[in-house]
Amino acid sequence: MAPPEARSTEQRKADTLAMLAEENLDGWVTSAPAAGRAHLVPLSLHWTGDRLVIAVEPASVTARNILETRVARIGLGATRDVVMMDVELDAAYPIGEVPASIGEGYATQSDWDPRAVGGDFVYLVLRPTRVQAWREVNELSTRALMREGTWLV
Amino acid sequence: MAPPEARSTEQRKADTLAMLAEENLDGWVTSAPAAGRAHLVPLSLHWTGDRLVIAVEPASVTARNILETRVARIGLGATRDVVMMDVELDAAYPIGEVPASIGEGYATQSDWDPRAVGGDFVYLVLRPTRVQAWREVNELSTRALMREGTWLV
Repeated sequence: MAPPEARSTEQRKADTLAMLAEENLDGWVTSAPAAGRAHLVPLSLHWTGDRLVIAVEPASVTARNILETRVARIGLGATRDVVMMDVELDAAYPIGEVPASIGEGYATQSDWDPRAVGGDFVYLVLRPTRVQAWREVNELSTRALMREGTWLV
Repeated sequence: MAPPEARSTEQRKADTLAMLAEENLDGWVTSAPAAGRAHLVPLSLHWTGDRLVIAVEPASVTARNILETRVARIGLGATRDVVMMDVELDAAYPIGEVPASIGEGYATQSDWDPRAVGGDFVYLVLRPTRVQAWREVNELSTRALMREGTWLV
């Protein structure tokens, strides 16, 4: 089967922003300690409009890695309809100190509310520095949508 | 919506093996250098029956990381129907030296044949050491299917 036609970068940005606004947004979150093995886990995500937010237990490998190195790489969508984001840690809020807008936004977009669970969670607010989007090989050469925190389109 | 009922571990192993046999099997491949930032990229996979095989350019970040550290973590399926494999590098074959069974198997299961492309690729043969499979929270506590290279079910 022939792959779909390559989209324009403008179309890809629109598709990316539409994906980020979806209910029950999940992503594959990759992190690593400063020295050691890479970790990968699928997590619920909240997109604030310019930040990705995850809520994780402070003792989790993901939380420990990101709090140590302040970076992660997050894959959204399907393996053949990818949005890839490199992110930097912007803020970390223990569950009792999360700003209402972030707590509410997370609970609204995802299908759970860490504040209602009663466990120990930390909200990590992640700023995209690089965004790439591609479906098939014909979109690879033009997959960059954001570099150094600035949208290119 | 209520999540689906938790599957037995036997059912999960059967589902995992069925997923691994699918045509056009893709996965999210995570790797990191010994010291540095984690990398993530979706790649075509071939399952030989007991090894995962990827074909990548030797200069790619994934190839360099795995050849350096000899480990990776690979997520298959969807974010709510996950098979997670920790793998160790078993063998690396430059494209001109790949055993016919691996080259043929890769070309048959995936939708491309690196041998026909004409570029420089290396086949990395990856041995699973740990396999986990889960859909929702109700399967998390029993997600282990393989430990230290041995199927538990």
